[in-house]
Amino acid sequence: MSYKTFDKKDLEFLKSLIPQEDRILYEDINEEYSHDELSGTSSYPDVVVKAVSTEEISAIMKYAYENNIPVTPRGAGTGLVGSSVAMEHGIMIDTSLMNHILELDEDNLTITVEPGVLLMELSAFVEEHDLFYPPDPGEKSATIGGNISTNAGGMRAVKYGVTRDYVRGLEVVLPNGEVVEMGGKVVKNSSGYALKDLMIGSEGTLGFITKAILKLLPLPKKAISLLVPFPSLEQAIGTVPKIIKSKAIPTAIEFMQREVIIDAEQYLGKKFPDSQSDAYLLLKFDGNSTEEIEQTYDAVAKLCLEEGAMDVLISDTEEREESIWKARGAFLEAIKGSTTYMDEVDMVVPRNRVNEMVEYLHALQDDAQIRIKSFGHAGDGNLHAYLLRDNLSQEEFEKRMLYAMDKVYAKADELGGQVSGEHGIGFAKKPYLKESLDPALITLMSGIKKAFDPKNILNPHKVFQD
Amino acid sequence: MSYKTFDKKDLEFLKSLIPQEDRILYEDINEEYSHDELSGTSSYPDVVVKAVSTEEISAIMKYAYENNIPVTPRGAGTGLVGSSVAMEHGIMIDTSLMNHILELDEDNLTITVEPGVLLMELSAFVEEHDLFYPPDPGEKSATIGGNISTNAGGMRAVKYGVTRDYVRGLEVVLPNGEVVEMGGKVVKNSSGYALKDLMIGSEGTLGFITKAILKLLPLPKKAISLLVPFPSLEQAIGTVPKIIKSKAIPTAIEFMQREVIIDAEQYLGKKFPDSQSDAYLLLKFDGNSTEEIEQTYDAVAKLCLEEGAMDVLISDTEEREESIWKARGAFLEAIKGSTTYMDEVDMVVPRNRVNEMVEYLHALQDDAQIRIKSFGHAGDGNLHAYLLRDNLSQEEFEKRMLYAMDKVYAKADELGGQVSGEHGIGFAKKPYLKESLDPALITLMSGIKKAFDPKNILNPHKVFQD
Repeated sequence: MSYKTFDKKDLEFLKSLIPQEDRILYEDINEEYSHDELSGTSSYPDVVVKAVSTEEISAIMKYAYENNIPVTPRGAGTGLVGSSVAMEHGIMIDTSLMNHILELDEDNLTITVEPGVLLMELSAFVEEHDLFYPPDPGEKSATIGGNISTNAGGMRAVKYGVTRDYVRGLEVVLPNGEVVEMGGKVVKNSSGYALKDLMIGSEGTLGFITKAILKLLPLPKKAISLLVPFPSLEQAIGTVPKIIKSKAIPTAIEFMQREVIIDAEQYLGKKFPDSQSDAYLLLKFDGNSTEEIEQTYDAVAKLCLEEGAMDVLISDTEEREESIWKARGAFLEAIKGSTTYMDEVDMVVPRNRVNEMVEYLHALQDDAQIRIKSFGHAGDGNLHAYLLRDNLSQEEFEKRMLYAMDKVYAKADELGGQVSGEHGIGFAKKPYLKESLDPALITLMSGIKKAFDPKNILNPHKVFQD
Repeated sequence: MSYKTFDKKDLEFLKSLIPQEDRILYEDINEEYSHDELSGTSSYPDVVVKAVSTEEISAIMKYAYENNIPVTPRGAGTGLVGSSVAMEHGIMIDTSLMNHILELDEDNLTITVEPGVLLMELSAFVEEHDLFYPPDPGEKSATIGGNISTNAGGMRAVKYGVTRDYVRGLEVVLPNGEVVEMGGKVVKNSSGYALKDLMIGSEGTLGFITKAILKLLPLPKKAISLLVPFPSLEQAIGTVPKIIKSKAIPTAIEFMQREVIIDAEQYLGKKFPDSQSDAYLLLKFDGNSTEEIEQTYDAVAKLCLEEGAMDVLISDTEEREESIWKARGAFLEAIKGSTTYMDEVDMVVPRNRVNEMVEYLHALQDDAQIRIKSFGHAGDGNLHAYLLRDNLSQEEFEKRMLYAMDKVYAKADELGGQVSGEHGIGFAKKPYLKESLDPALITLMSGIKKAFDPKNILNPHKVFQD
């Protein structure tokens, strides 16, 4: 791929378009714009534009398209696989100023937002109106545009599904600058190919999301969590398929181990409410009445005890609830803080293969001579494993890390899994995607990319592109 | 488009591939294969092959691709827009013999089926195992392959979503004969472009679905329906957004009018359990305990009465339940039986615009001088309107029908709606899709089609293709 190098003339164009100087970063671009949450993928854009409207993004895309300049969309930069890193430099469009909630439609239970609205802002806003946006990824300071671009999942997927299930409509700027709408406020839609669904999870490579219509639910009146210590992680995870079969439908089922809890305690400077075991299931139930939830969790609590749980701790006060979920929410940062550097694996396997995967990860630490910490969504088979550098040299870490990654992804594949459950492929996971998918599928993706972006100017080198 | 005409040599190839004579229909092809449930779109295939395996379909596609012969996938032929009609003749592949349930995985709550399994067979099978496949289109004798190809919706979409939400993985034969897998048993997936989601609703134009992994839920223990007569349809439909906002989350909310109920009574030879009004809401609630459901429907019943409902009839016996829902399920056939011929509109509008649409349809009868009957999914904004020929000449009917269709789709567009909620576009609705969508989106669809099917041999002239 060969692109035009961004130059002063291009800068002049951007300045003519955008009157406010502080919305164009050119000479001193903050280091943070060169990578995302993990710094393994790194490259500077030539310029960063903080856009404020669809029209601006459309004008920039049109100019970039005509002049063959690469463009990289950027939200809050909380990704983990390099999707928002400007591999070919060029123009980065930062959506963080496009953070307005445009409309709450209470009749249709939809909310229309700009892409730079943060997940935590969205949740807080709708909850004030007694409504509920169920997707709940751990990273609350991600933008909704980023969440859509990776089809983010989160903790509540067991009961409520993932981001895809809550996107009704999108406004998208195509690579040539045209503005189109996909979907709308409608609940059902069988009107031509599912372009909106194709956009979801395409990691900013097919079009630039400038607006989203999201589905909301009524806010459940009550939520209660159970923290369940088990004598072994195997027993804990082995109980999950039985819970799912029992008609209980918990909102979330997470597994966690003491070593990660300790990291979180240190990171937050706060004790976790229980310390009797090495392995826990954390379950959440929600509903509209205490009795309804009680009936459900009672049955699950019994089931856990039958399966060998040591105890069932009910968290029915807001304080306790917060202390448990805050710890869970801090795992990524806590693990990151416990080592010098790390890389991550976000594979998803069928729910009944989680135990095999976790055991495999444990054994792999010896084989690959690298520390691995994991936690994850036992209820949906999505595991997050972190490979820690600790005191290894960068070179030695990379060697061991790559060895371990190859093994992990091969194992996930063997178990009927996929490379990424919710973080996406970006730049970092391309080799593993290519290994796991039929080459015919990569060819199809490549053809789709060409249909959307014949000049390949939007976020090149991502997902499957060399 | 120019294709090779199917000839004796091609027939010989098929015979060499398929030993059983009765699986190849050549000289006397049943008239039914020339159209679907509505006969407005009509064309005969040159040959019909009743395939029994992925391998056969792959071999036929490969041959067709190499020899430039068009192929049309066919399920039960219950479509309403001509998706499964062989517009360019050639080979029709009928999946009705591929009707095996391949695996029930109770740990992962998935079922793997061949595409020719009928919706009613699937429901019955999983319910025997105390499990639940929520999508519930009125046409129970449709195949699951057809349901996936149109992203069929059905009655339970209010609470449970549509077919898309229950397809975890697909095995697909690409137009060149290659067999690929998209998705799998995993719950979350962010591993490259959403090809599986693109296949869903693509009406057999991108690939041939030969296997599907579907998500199941535990079967709710109890279901109760409410039949609620209102003094006017406007009041009935106007109550729906209020129900949705009330945190009740019914399984289904349908509206129906006396004139359609009378058709159903005549068609079924059975009285409907109530006759006090012209306009009804029919609501369903499900859950795991009678108390839980009672709490919910109690609140909704009160709300309906506050909004002016004349009565609330609780259907808590299986017999009553069946008599109501059987009537609802028979609407399409009953309306069809009440006239000489009809065509249909399946638009979807935002939930709070249903009333405007229904009023518009009523008024249009005078304007267009054509009888229109409608019913539909008030809970999700998907209306089914039928334009009846009655005693009109075919020519006069077509004139009035086309006039009315134009008006209806323009109105749906004005209300923020889409051309099809669940029936798809097929052959019959192409002009309306093109009118409603941005030409840039049609260009994208065309590019996607080219990426999958560069020779355009799979189900040509459908969805958006001239």
